[in-house]
Amino acid sequence: MTIRNTQGLTVWFTGLSGAGKTTLSQALEKLLMARGYRVEPLDGDVVRQHLSKGLGYSKADRDENIRRIGFVAELLTRHGVVALVSAISPYREIRDEVRRKIGAFLEIYVNAPLEVCEQRDQKGLYQRARAGEIKGFTGIDDPYQPPLAPEVECRTDLETVEESVAKVWREVEAKLAGG
Amino acid sequence: MTIRNTQGLTVWFTGLSGAGKTTLSQALEKLLMARGYRVEPLDGDVVRQHLSKGLGYSKADRDENIRRIGFVAELLTRHGVVALVSAISPYREIRDEVRRKIGAFLEIYVNAPLEVCEQRDQKGLYQRARAGEIKGFTGIDDPYQPPLAPEVECRTDLETVEESVAKVWREVEAKLAGG
Repeated sequence: MTIRNTQGLTVWFTGLSGAGKTTLSQALEKLLMARGYRVEPLDGDVVRQHLSKGLGYSKADRDENIRRIGFVAELLTRHGVVALVSAISPYREIRDEVRRKIGAFLEIYVNAPLEVCEQRDQKGLYQRARAGEIKGFTGIDDPYQPPLAPEVECRTDLETVEESVAKVWREVEAKLAGG
Repeated sequence: MTIRNTQGLTVWFTGLSGAGKTTLSQALEKLLMARGYRVEPLDGDVVRQHLSKGLGYSKADRDENIRRIGFVAELLTRHGVVALVSAISPYREIRDEVRRKIGAFLEIYVNAPLEVCEQRDQKGLYQRARAGEIKGFTGIDDPYQPPLAPEVECRTDLETVEESVAKVWREVEAKLAGG
């Protein structure tokens, strides 16, 4: 297949654990790959293993981790790749910092109420956080600052995955077309 | 200018501080850019600021730093970029690990005798290391393990920059042509 030679883009999925960031990112990845775009998923947990061993979950460490993901996303974006970042990235200021550095950037607020995320609890993390086995868990005993003006908000408790992805796709397509 | 859509490659310059890694990397970057390749220089010191704040110069920390540079170089290489890494990268085993992970990889041994590097001492680091102000400085009180089978060896004390770059360029060209 022909690989398109386009400007790159960072699509940044932010939201609580269990909100559906990875699900949406993976669906978008398929769409993009089918259309010949260069795509690279950057999952917060995976990148953490590669770039942030030794960092914890204090605000300073979370910020540093997000900066590193942003550094990699910027490099990829500059070289024509669509970087799909899924990371809780709970702090507004550092998300805005990364946005400024990258430029070609879409912020996708993957929004489901805490109760819904907690009910899903795919990884059993909320249960462990409630039991006090995990400290500083976003939404439980650590803050999440929602985006004030995300390009897209997906209410994953009210919309189907297809509906959410369609909303994201419209913005991505416009951006890649030079919008 | 048209950007070429090619397979990527990592060109890894290893050698003592002052051996000429950055000089050769910059000359190669110009050659590649003039020919329309996507290029990204990854300078060890610069990447350290972005990805490895908090890491020091113990063997474990140096290895982790090189792994992180390797992670980024691999991503870029996979997406058709020529990543030009210049990093002392004193340990053979970790260089070989990175080579295995990346695949499309050329190791350039930038070789000048310690005495020559120390005489150049562009950054004044050798003087500070000799004075004991910097501990664990490669070549002074920390080891450098030369590559056993680098694709290219540049004796920068005996060759001109042009001669060294020409040797590297031959290998790069062959590799990018699918060699």
